[in-house]
Amino acid sequence: MGGDHGPEVVIPALVGVAERRQDVRFLIYGIDEQVRPVMDRHPRLAAVSEFFPCEIAVRMDDKPSQALRHGRWKSSMWRAIEAVKNGDADVCVSAGNTGALMAMSKFCLRTMATIERPAIAAIWPTIRGESIVLDVGATIGDDAHQLVDFAILGAAMARALHETERPTVGLLNVGVEEIKGQEEVKEAGRILREVEPMSMEYRGFVEGDDIGKGTVDVVVTEGFAGNIALKTAEGTARQIGEYLRAALSRTMMARIGYVFAKSAFTRLREKMDPRRANGGVFLGLNGIVVKSHGGTDAEGFMAAIELGYDMVRNRLLDKIRSDLDMFHSRAPRPGRIVPDAGDAASAAS
Amino acid sequence: MGGDHGPEVVIPALVGVAERRQDVRFLIYGIDEQVRPVMDRHPRLAAVSEFFPCEIAVRMDDKPSQALRHGRWKSSMWRAIEAVKNGDADVCVSAGNTGALMAMSKFCLRTMATIERPAIAAIWPTIRGESIVLDVGATIGDDAHQLVDFAILGAAMARALHETERPTVGLLNVGVEEIKGQEEVKEAGRILREVEPMSMEYRGFVEGDDIGKGTVDVVVTEGFAGNIALKTAEGTARQIGEYLRAALSRTMMARIGYVFAKSAFTRLREKMDPRRANGGVFLGLNGIVVKSHGGTDAEGFMAAIELGYDMVRNRLLDKIRSDLDMFHSRAPRPGRIVPDAGDAASAAS
Repeated sequence: MGGDHGPEVVIPALVGVAERRQDVRFLIYGIDEQVRPVMDRHPRLAAVSEFFPCEIAVRMDDKPSQALRHGRWKSSMWRAIEAVKNGDADVCVSAGNTGALMAMSKFCLRTMATIERPAIAAIWPTIRGESIVLDVGATIGDDAHQLVDFAILGAAMARALHETERPTVGLLNVGVEEIKGQEEVKEAGRILREVEPMSMEYRGFVEGDDIGKGTVDVVVTEGFAGNIALKTAEGTARQIGEYLRAALSRTMMARIGYVFAKSAFTRLREKMDPRRANGGVFLGLNGIVVKSHGGTDAEGFMAAIELGYDMVRNRLLDKIRSDLDMFHSRAPRPGRIVPDAGDAASAAS
Repeated sequence: MGGDHGPEVVIPALVGVAERRQDVRFLIYGIDEQVRPVMDRHPRLAAVSEFFPCEIAVRMDDKPSQALRHGRWKSSMWRAIEAVKNGDADVCVSAGNTGALMAMSKFCLRTMATIERPAIAAIWPTIRGESIVLDVGATIGDDAHQLVDFAILGAAMARALHETERPTVGLLNVGVEEIKGQEEVKEAGRILREVEPMSMEYRGFVEGDDIGKGTVDVVVTEGFAGNIALKTAEGTARQIGEYLRAALSRTMMARIGYVFAKSAFTRLREKMDPRRANGGVFLGLNGIVVKSHGGTDAEGFMAAIELGYDMVRNRLLDKIRSDLDMFHSRAPRPGRIVPDAGDAASAAS
């Protein structure tokens, strides 16, 4: 129901995925009058899906608390998440209200035993391929232990998506020296260095420009800075696109050049296409929820579904659980790691 | 002495500025053996400059505390800042170690009476022109009053640079709704809305992608997120440049297209040229200090000098002082502004 276009985008996306994949079944939750007419236009979808009409749908401008109050138990969003909880579905994909989706996911699926806060992980295209960046907006002001959790969650996701044995992990900071930055980030770095989790290769601090370079497979950050980084990158890409368009249409010569180089620009546009890397993954819950961009089209929503599909097939939740177990068997309990308060270098910074 | 190239970049930049501007004089501080040979290659510089040989120079990898310990009173960096303090110079421009430059500037020039922490302001190219973003790295974890100070400092700089009467100001946040984001940002928003400073038009919250759009003239943020945003944008621009280069050299047709559209690409490169907007300005001190990018060339260093020149000519410090006075005459004393703790919307967020 959610996103800018609702079923008009979601239903064609399901059709698209169904054509590609024989092993997918869809449970569709939504308002009857809005979903049914679109489904009727795609008769082949019926064979691989089941539609569950719902009383209400969470609105894009509902506050999380409102959505929970009015939409718990009965909204299409809640019921889709509940399907994951009940084991009827392997993953929930929604283009709806992010805050509401997170609030309901937390309430319904609960966070994993040792995880305090779930994170939203984004797939970030880089020069070397793609990296995972988390958290990009579920949290604000995380402490060191939460950042360490995010590192474990992100590394598990990287292993599920890219089949790398030990993904490289960096903590986003304002400098690469150990004495720089937020206290929480420095302490998280000390913990990761001390514990050396088996599921990742911790590479220390990275800076904002390392994300696009693909310096590490997983970039870990507190959600305020992570969200600002993500949106700043999107804004910069759009800005350069505008510059390029303006420059290429300004003179006759440039327009001729554009015609010749058209395939190159198409390629560039594809590389920069935000639909390709569509989907924020909620990590740290007892179930997988993928948030599609609200403004995307059917192709973008397909990418979000495919992302969920990959993570289910590659057993993301099992990986996370075993990585967390392994970490906690090596690490002292949270709260017992005492930061080195006497660190003179740190005090002088 | 600082930056990747030292006098080899700085001296030619001075020559360039001197050719353009008749009303500039330079006081040059540096190590004799390194500066003199380069100056000798530019004999016309002697007429508009004076060279002060210094005992030592701060190194690029000195920690701020080390730089202060070893370089106070006698390093070239210190003496250049001191020239501003003594009134011998109107502005200090350096491509040196940022942390050391800030530490020495604070120690030598001191923060203005009502300012707790100085900020580094960057000039950010946008679709609509350019905006000022601060703080991009001098501070970490600012409280609401510091963010309000930054708003006043940034607005004064916008007035000095762009001659707008009341620049628009936004607080960088993870959403535009008043209930979203960090507590400090929300409180700063409440103060600005309540006090309505005359020197700016406060526009509320902006998000990461608003920076490149040029939604507001001045974007205010705590330094950790600001530094990450700045470096992420730089990284994204470089990444897209790589994509473009790769796409345009891949096929014969694309290479032909490139030849025709060459002027367009030159234009694009100029627009994206980081040298054009080179120079972070230290705001909140009793003197103007401009930090040039360490890796820049003579043209970039010229831009940093020109930036300092503009701000001196447009009386930045006077503007800041009068704006601060005006603000404090309207606002209750810091600490006496009690945030509306009963705000139900905020509590529910």
